[in-house]
Amino acid sequence: MAAILLDVDGVLHVSGETIPGAVDAVKRLRAAGHRIRFVTNSTTKSRADLGMHLRSMGFAIEDDELQTTGDVAARVLKGKRILALTMPGILDDLVGLELIGMNADAVLIGGADEGEETGRVFSYLNLNRAFLELQSGADLYCLHKNRWWQTAEGPRLDAGAFVAGLEYVADTDATVLGKPSPEYFAAALEALDADAELAWMVGDDLEGDIVGAQRHGMRTVLVRTGKFRPDDLDHTGIVPDGIVSSIAQLPDWLEQNP
Amino acid sequence: MAAILLDVDGVLHVSGETIPGAVDAVKRLRAAGHRIRFVTNSTTKSRADLGMHLRSMGFAIEDDELQTTGDVAARVLKGKRILALTMPGILDDLVGLELIGMNADAVLIGGADEGEETGRVFSYLNLNRAFLELQSGADLYCLHKNRWWQTAEGPRLDAGAFVAGLEYVADTDATVLGKPSPEYFAAALEALDADAELAWMVGDDLEGDIVGAQRHGMRTVLVRTGKFRPDDLDHTGIVPDGIVSSIAQLPDWLEQNP
Repeated sequence: MAAILLDVDGVLHVSGETIPGAVDAVKRLRAAGHRIRFVTNSTTKSRADLGMHLRSMGFAIEDDELQTTGDVAARVLKGKRILALTMPGILDDLVGLELIGMNADAVLIGGADEGEETGRVFSYLNLNRAFLELQSGADLYCLHKNRWWQTAEGPRLDAGAFVAGLEYVADTDATVLGKPSPEYFAAALEALDADAELAWMVGDDLEGDIVGAQRHGMRTVLVRTGKFRPDDLDHTGIVPDGIVSSIAQLPDWLEQNP
Repeated sequence: MAAILLDVDGVLHVSGETIPGAVDAVKRLRAAGHRIRFVTNSTTKSRADLGMHLRSMGFAIEDDELQTTGDVAARVLKGKRILALTMPGILDDLVGLELIGMNADAVLIGGADEGEETGRVFSYLNLNRAFLELQSGADLYCLHKNRWWQTAEGPRLDAGAFVAGLEYVADTDATVLGKPSPEYFAAALEALDADAELAWMVGDDLEGDIVGAQRHGMRTVLVRTGKFRPDDLDHTGIVPDGIVSSIAQLPDWLEQNP
């Protein structure tokens, strides 16, 4: 039986709408004896909120099966003094970090969301504060470095802009903690006590899910839901081990490709 | 007689304090028949305000001898529809541009200053607006791409952070309009009707003034005032044609090195 990392957004649901057959597919994977970890790059909700959200959609998921970017930040930055520019929703996952306003060991930049909090978190004064900490020797980390995301009103600027801006002014490279970082995949595999070569990553994002997992030595299955665009496969030259219409086909596919 | 481009901040004055002998040096250069243009990278004051400021320090300078980054923006972007994220002080120099909030031909990013306006101009909502314009095909311009500047309270984040951030999210390179851009030096030389090979650039900034002017084919004199740090000369390997203690020595130096 395999270890399977399942991406959440775009694989289990799209904007809160369950992918048809997804609830049953997760059940079948469990029944077949696979060990599953749910791996999300969400930067706006804590693990507890995400668990509640997924259960409300019908998924039988325990909170401790979910891995968030906040979890990985807590693991990597354990015991450090952190200036965190993140959405308040994920603060619950940053356990063991000392969140402070100055004399930080590290600056941690989270993703943006659609609420008004985004403008307050990524204000000039906060970015100036982050710059001063970096200039005083703090290291730069981010939950992801996404350029933008799609909302009902169209594309919206994501926190990658602020990560890139701080990298430029402080002449440094941020360590990305979410997918596709090695730290993220390592944490998920460790939680399942699994070897990369025997584990599957299932996702809808060619760069964040598929390429990241391939670099980490994992096998990959791409779903044709969520962020998936047929053109991307042609343009990028990325070749997953498998491609399925949706997670509903995954249990059958894995039986035929063990 | 030569054409001379004189940097302002750090060459004529430092934070409003006139460099000793600077007023007299400008007089002597004029008396010797040199044609002078005052070239500043300031992004917070209009030409009229800068002229008034310099005259209040004792310099005999006409407004139309001053070249600002706003002048160059007005020249390069003439007739275009511009989304401008700039300090309000320089708006007077952006003549001939249509300043608008959407459907822009170009996004123009100016420098930050110490006032509260900086936070309002570089708000998340404005940066998101700029991102959407860039995504719709607008070109990205900036008055400079400075990382930070020195204030009485210490270093402060400059707009280079936002330029770099927008470059990253829109996968583009900004055109820099201030020094050391070719457009800036070309505009100054054209105003004096001078050839680059026969013109001098006098400045305190190795990168912005000296290297930029050298790349443009000009001769250069570095002053040991303002931003000048002896270490920089050793580290960078940049060699100006001349180095003087301050602008006060420039008239004598030019007589000996015509």
